[in-house]
Amino acid sequence: MEHRVGYKIYYEDTDSLGVVYYANYLKYLERGRTEYVGARGRPIQLWNQDGYYFVVYELQMKFKRSAGLGDEIEVVSRFQRTSAYRGRFTQRIECRGEVLVEADVDIVCIDPQQRLREFPAL
Amino acid sequence: MEHRVGYKIYYEDTDSLGVVYYANYLKYLERGRTEYVGARGRPIQLWNQDGYYFVVYELQMKFKRSAGLGDEIEVVSRFQRTSAYRGRFTQRIECRGEVLVEADVDIVCIDPQQRLREFPAL
Amino acid sequence: MEHRVGYKIYYEDTDSLGVVYYANYLKYLERGRTEYVGARGRPIQLWNQDGYYFVVYELQMKFKRSAGLGDEIEVVSRFQRTSAYRGRFTQRIECRGEVLVEADVDIVCIDPQQRLREFPAL
Amino acid sequence: MEHRVGYKIYYEDTDSLGVVYYANYLKYLERGRTEYVGARGRPIQLWNQDGYYFVVYELQMKFKRSAGLGDEIEVVSRFQRTSAYRGRFTQRIECRGEVLVEADVDIVCIDPQQRLREFPAL
Repeated sequence: MEHRVGYKIYYEDTDSLGVVYYANYLKYLERGRTEYVGARGRPIQLWNQDGYYFVVYELQMKFKRSAGLGDEIEVVSRFQRTSAYRGRFTQRIECRGEVLVEADVDIVCIDPQQRLREFPAL
Repeated sequence: MEHRVGYKIYYEDTDSLGVVYYANYLKYLERGRTEYVGARGRPIQLWNQDGYYFVVYELQMKFKRSAGLGDEIEVVSRFQRTSAYRGRFTQRIECRGEVLVEADVDIVCIDPQQRLREFPAL
Repeated sequence: MEHRVGYKIYYEDTDSLGVVYYANYLKYLERGRTEYVGARGRPIQLWNQDGYYFVVYELQMKFKRSAGLGDEIEVVSRFQRTSAYRGRFTQRIECRGEVLVEADVDIVCIDPQQRLREFPAL
Repeated sequence: MEHRVGYKIYYEDTDSLGVVYYANYLKYLERGRTEYVGARGRPIQLWNQDGYYFVVYELQMKFKRSAGLGDEIEVVSRFQRTSAYRGRFTQRIECRGEVLVEADVDIVCIDPQQRLREFPAL
């Protein structure tokens, strides 16, 4: 499943170089993962209430182009369990058909005591 | 004109008290003003390119209730010129029909040299 | 007691208009209040652990000047209990001896069940 | 040269899981790079004024431990030119002697027209 969700760039997203501040792309990636999880039938806050926290332990990103004020971006996300305890989101951010950012985001699932727990079926 | 636009609350919006961090409501208010301006026919980035910058010089806010992860909020905005050089946005943020935040946001319009300029018709 | 604490402006603080994004001044005000509380002998996280949460319910701000990338700002905070259940922080943000922002920030103290609780002596 | 600079964790840095929101570690890494550049004799805003913008084009990060409200973290940065047009910051974030985050951050230098320009001596 390839999941897409769109966002608009506001002042809060930009910095004094005139484009989106680099750390904010990680916010959009996280929004995309949250929406991905919700689209599988169960919103993230319910997972949290049940003691499932999805935590990033490693990521690789390429920044290819910048978005600016007023741009409409799209976060595209795919997910794959890589073991009983690990999963990888393969994500990209697009704007006007061009790729701005590519990311591989590796996550684990932990419980409220910060112990690894088996990945639920997402 | 009463303008409405909706947003969802993500992890980035919350803090360790479990609800939206108070400064982030100002981001939503600004998104609402930006959308208000765009809905009048001209997106904010074009105003900026033409040398019109809308700047907050005073605000009053009441925080009544909190939003949390996954909540859908709505920013409601009205605007009134209060003089040739000043305008006021009367705004509120709602969630499930309840008011979370009320704000009066007073703005001026400046040019690239930071001089006051007459308000355009919004 | 007038409490002072200094911060530097980084890219994350600015927006595409080239200066600090307006909502970020509320972050500095909150840092100032947090440091004020800590300077009274008990860091904020310990108050939280004991079930005391300090919450803003109203604020008034004036934005007079802007800070930009690399600027060193100072947050100046005074506090006064205004009743058994309410307190007011009178704050300002300075840069190179000039006032950027003035704010009156009214707070209450709540417990983990979101009930008002009497203000502790700060 | 190994450069160190310290920061404190405030509410703004945390999210509803009770620890620092993952994208905020990129803010601290950027603060560390900005301070590194400044410590070499020329603050970042002067480089910008002269038309040198340092832009991240790739990064790899490992998230090992979390920081929470009130924690004091330290950003440790080293830099190496990897070619006439590229450089790598090797960075980590520490807290109480433990490594929270490790990152390799690859940057280029561009001019105001977004063209690659040769790396200045940092």
